[in-house]
Amino acid sequence: MSETLTKLKSHLQQVTDLQNAAAVLYWDLEVMMPEGGAAPRARQLSTLSRIAHEMATSDELGTLIDAAERELAGADYDSDDAALLRVARHDFDEATRLPTDFVAEFTKLTAESHEVWAQARAEDNFSHFAPYLERILEMTMRRAEYLGYTDHPYDALINTYERGMTAAEVKRIFDAHKPALIDLIGQIGEVEGRVSNKPVHQHFDTSKQREFALWVVEQFGFDFKRGRQDVSVHPFCTNFSRYDVRLTTRFHDDFLNPALFGLMHESGHGMYEQGSAPEIDGLPLAGGTSLGVHESQSRMWENIVGRSKPFWSWAYPRLQQTFPAQLGSVSLEDFWRAVNTVERQFIRVEADEATYNLHIMLRFELECDMVSGKVAVNDLPREWNGRFESYLGVTPPNDKEGVLQDVHWSGGMIGYFPTYALGNLLSVQYFNAALKQHPNLHDEFAVGKFDTLRKWLVENIHRHGRKFTSQELTARITGGQIDPSPYVDYLQTKYREVYGL
Amino acid sequence: MSETLTKLKSHLQQVTDLQNAAAVLYWDLEVMMPEGGAAPRARQLSTLSRIAHEMATSDELGTLIDAAERELAGADYDSDDAALLRVARHDFDEATRLPTDFVAEFTKLTAESHEVWAQARAEDNFSHFAPYLERILEMTMRRAEYLGYTDHPYDALINTYERGMTAAEVKRIFDAHKPALIDLIGQIGEVEGRVSNKPVHQHFDTSKQREFALWVVEQFGFDFKRGRQDVSVHPFCTNFSRYDVRLTTRFHDDFLNPALFGLMHESGHGMYEQGSAPEIDGLPLAGGTSLGVHESQSRMWENIVGRSKPFWSWAYPRLQQTFPAQLGSVSLEDFWRAVNTVERQFIRVEADEATYNLHIMLRFELECDMVSGKVAVNDLPREWNGRFESYLGVTPPNDKEGVLQDVHWSGGMIGYFPTYALGNLLSVQYFNAALKQHPNLHDEFAVGKFDTLRKWLVENIHRHGRKFTSQELTARITGGQIDPSPYVDYLQTKYREVYGL
Repeated sequence: MSETLTKLKSHLQQVTDLQNAAAVLYWDLEVMMPEGGAAPRARQLSTLSRIAHEMATSDELGTLIDAAERELAGADYDSDDAALLRVARHDFDEATRLPTDFVAEFTKLTAESHEVWAQARAEDNFSHFAPYLERILEMTMRRAEYLGYTDHPYDALINTYERGMTAAEVKRIFDAHKPALIDLIGQIGEVEGRVSNKPVHQHFDTSKQREFALWVVEQFGFDFKRGRQDVSVHPFCTNFSRYDVRLTTRFHDDFLNPALFGLMHESGHGMYEQGSAPEIDGLPLAGGTSLGVHESQSRMWENIVGRSKPFWSWAYPRLQQTFPAQLGSVSLEDFWRAVNTVERQFIRVEADEATYNLHIMLRFELECDMVSGKVAVNDLPREWNGRFESYLGVTPPNDKEGVLQDVHWSGGMIGYFPTYALGNLLSVQYFNAALKQHPNLHDEFAVGKFDTLRKWLVENIHRHGRKFTSQELTARITGGQIDPSPYVDYLQTKYREVYGL
Repeated sequence: MSETLTKLKSHLQQVTDLQNAAAVLYWDLEVMMPEGGAAPRARQLSTLSRIAHEMATSDELGTLIDAAERELAGADYDSDDAALLRVARHDFDEATRLPTDFVAEFTKLTAESHEVWAQARAEDNFSHFAPYLERILEMTMRRAEYLGYTDHPYDALINTYERGMTAAEVKRIFDAHKPALIDLIGQIGEVEGRVSNKPVHQHFDTSKQREFALWVVEQFGFDFKRGRQDVSVHPFCTNFSRYDVRLTTRFHDDFLNPALFGLMHESGHGMYEQGSAPEIDGLPLAGGTSLGVHESQSRMWENIVGRSKPFWSWAYPRLQQTFPAQLGSVSLEDFWRAVNTVERQFIRVEADEATYNLHIMLRFELECDMVSGKVAVNDLPREWNGRFESYLGVTPPNDKEGVLQDVHWSGGMIGYFPTYALGNLLSVQYFNAALKQHPNLHDEFAVGKFDTLRKWLVENIHRHGRKFTSQELTARITGGQIDPSPYVDYLQTKYREVYGL
C-alpha cells in the first residue's frame, strides 16, 4: 500500500473512531444514563463531533484525498481502495461545503426547535412551532445552496440521506404507485370487518415477549456475540463496528406488535451492519450505504419474512406455548391475519404495509412545496389534513395526530422521509431477486431456516458497505432501477389472501 | 473573566470531555460490550486517548498556562481559578515530560505484559512473567528520570498517584505502625477461634443481595438520579461528571461480603465524585484529589460506618428479614463479629482491616528495593514469601497466591500500592475530625441517619475537587500530617471488642 493511502486510511480511521465513540455515548444516553447526566453528556458529544468535524474537513485530509485520486486514477471501480476514495471524497466535499458557523447555528436552532416542537405537540399547538419551522426552512434553503444541486434544491437535501437520489426520481416512483395504493386501501376499507386484530391486543408479559422476540431474531441470524438488545423509549439500532451492534426495543404489556415486529425490524438494520466486510471495518466505507437500503433490510425481516404465513406456520406453535391463555384458541390463520391488519391510522409509525407509503408521499409533497415556496408554513395544517383525507379517506382530529406528529422537521431533517418509502419498495425488489436464485425461501422459513436469505443479503448487499450507492446496488441486483410495481404486486397478493379480496 | 482564562478553561474542558468520553467507552467495555467488540473498542479508546494527550500537551495550552500564571500571580491560593491553574500546570508538566514515543512504547509493553501476567498467574509460573517485569522495571526507571525527583526515583512514581508524596514519607508512616499491626494480628491469632465467619458464608440469593445493598448505599446518600449500579467482573467506580457516577459490583451467591461491602466501598468513591462542586464540573479541577484520599472515602463507608456496630444495630433487622432462613437465628453480636473476622489470608483484595496495610507494606518495600536495585526481579518470589511469613506468620503456598496475585506491576503501576494503605489511615483521621464536630455520629448511624457525616465530607473534602493535595487537605482538616496512630487506635479498640482481647 502506498504511503499516501496508508496515511489516508489512518486519518479516516481516526475520524471513524471518534464518530463511533460518539455513537457509544449516544447509545448510553438513550439506554443507560441516569437522568442527571444530560447536560455534561451533551457537552461531551458536542466536543467529540466538533473534533471529528475538524478532522473530517482538515486541509491535511483534502491534500491526502487529492494525492490518492492521482495515484488511484484508473483503478478498478469495484476495488475497496477505489470505493473508499469515492466515499472519502463525497464525505469531505459535503462536510467542507457547509461553513462551520452555519453548522453551529443550525445545530443550535434544531436543538431549541426540538424542545419547542415537543411542547407544541403535547399542547396540540402548531402556531407555537411555526416560527421555528420557518427559521429551519430558511436555513435548510441556505443549506441546499451550500451543498449545491442541478435541478431542484430538494435534490441537495435528499442526497444527504440517499446519495444520488433526486426529487424528480422520487416523484416518478411515488406517482407510479400512489393510485394503486389508494385503490387497494379503498377495497380493503369495504371489507375491513373480515379481519380482527384482537389477538395481538391482549395482556402479554413483557419478559416473555422479550424471550420470544430474542429467540426469533437469533434464528434470523442476528449474532449476539457481536451485539446486544436493550430497552429504550424510542427503538433504534446503532453500532460502533461490525463487531458491536446494539438493538433497542420498547415493550407494551397490552400489545404484542411493537416489541416483536420492532425487534425483527431493528435486527434487519443490525444484520446489515454485522454483514459489512471485515476488511473495511473501522473505515468510512463500512456500514449501510443509504437510509433507503438500510430500511429495505429492516422491512424485509419485519414484513416480508416476519409477517409471512410460512414464518408463522413455524413460529406460531412456540408463541402459543409462550402465551397459552392468550393464543391457545387462536388459529394460525387468524393470528396471521391479525398481524396483517390494515387500518387507516393517523400516525405514520403505527402504519401498516398498505398505508405506510401514502403517509410518506404526503410528507414528500409538502416538503417539496415548502422548499419551492408553494406552501407557506402557516398553511401546513390545512394542507396536511386535506391531502390525508384524499389519500386515506379520514381526517386527523388534531395537529398532534397530524402535522405535528413527527420529530424530523424540528431536527432539520427535511429530505429524510422518502427513504422510508424507498426502503419498502427495495425490500420487495431485493427479496424477489433472492427468490429468483433460491426459489425455496418460503419453504425454508416454514421450517425455521433463514440462513439462505441472510447469506444472500450478505453476499449481495451487506458486505459491500458503502461501495455502491442505492441505485448502483439496485442495478447490480435487479438489472434495473428502483421500481414500485413489485411492491404493489406483493401487497395485492398478500391482501387478496388476508382480506379475501 | 479574562480572555486568557476563558480560552484556557475552554481548552481544558475539551480535554476533560475527551477523557470522560473515554471513561464511558471503558465502562461500556467492562459492563455492557458484547465479546466481539473488544478489538475495535481498543482502537477507539486509543484514538481518544491519543487526541486527548495531543491536546493536553499542545504548545497552545502551554502558552495559555504561561499567560494565565502571569495574570493570576498573587491570586488567592484557595480560589477556584488559582487552584485550576495549579492543577493545569501540574498535569501539563507531567504530560509533556514524557516523550510521546516513550508513552506509546510503555503502553504497548504493558498491554503485552498484562496478557503474559494473566497467563503466568493462571499457570503459577513466575519465570514466564519475569522478563516482562524486568522490561517494565527498566522503563519505569526511565519514566522516573523523565518525570524528575529530588531524593529517590520512587518519589516520581508515587507522585503520579499521590501528588506531593515521597518514598521517605511513606516509609516514615509505614514504619510507625507496622509493629503495632504485627502485634495486633499476633494477639488475634491466639484467640481466632472466638469468632466465626460462618454467618456470611451461606447461600444468599443475589437479587436479594442487590436489593439490600442498593438500599444501604442509597441511605448513605449515594444519589441514583446522578448514578447507577451494574455488574462487572472486577468492581469499580467511574464517572463522566458529578452528574453521572457509575458503581459496579460482583455478586457471589455463597458469600455476602463481596457485593455488600464492595458496594458500600464503591459508593464511598462515588459520593466523593458526586460531591465535587458544580462550579468546577467538566474541568480538570473536578473529582478526587488523589488515590489515597479517594480510598479514605471508600474505606470510611465500607469499614468505619459499614462494619460498625451502630450501623448494624439499625440495618441488621432488615437484613434478617431479607434472609430469614440464613440469619433469623444469628444474633446481631455474632453477625457483627462475623463481618469483622481477621484472617491471615494470602490475597490482598480479600484482606481485612487489620492485615490490609501489611500486605501493602510488603509491596512498597519490594518496589523500593526493585527501583533501587537491591532486589532482582528473579528474587522476588523468595523475597515475597519471606517477608509475608515474617509479617503475617504464614507462607503463600505458590506464586499465584503470592507475588503474581496483583495486576498492578503488569500494568506498569509501580508506586500505586501505598495509596491503599494511606487511604485506610486517612479514613480514620478524617472520621475522627468529623466526630469531633459531630460527637453523635454513631448514634445517628444507629437510627439510619448518615447525612451529617456525608455533608461534613462534602464540605471539608468532596467539594474541593483537586484544589488541595492530600497533605494540604489533611493539614486543613486535622492541623497535622498523615498519621497512622489514629488508625491503630481504631483497630485496637474494635478488635478488643470483637475478639475480647
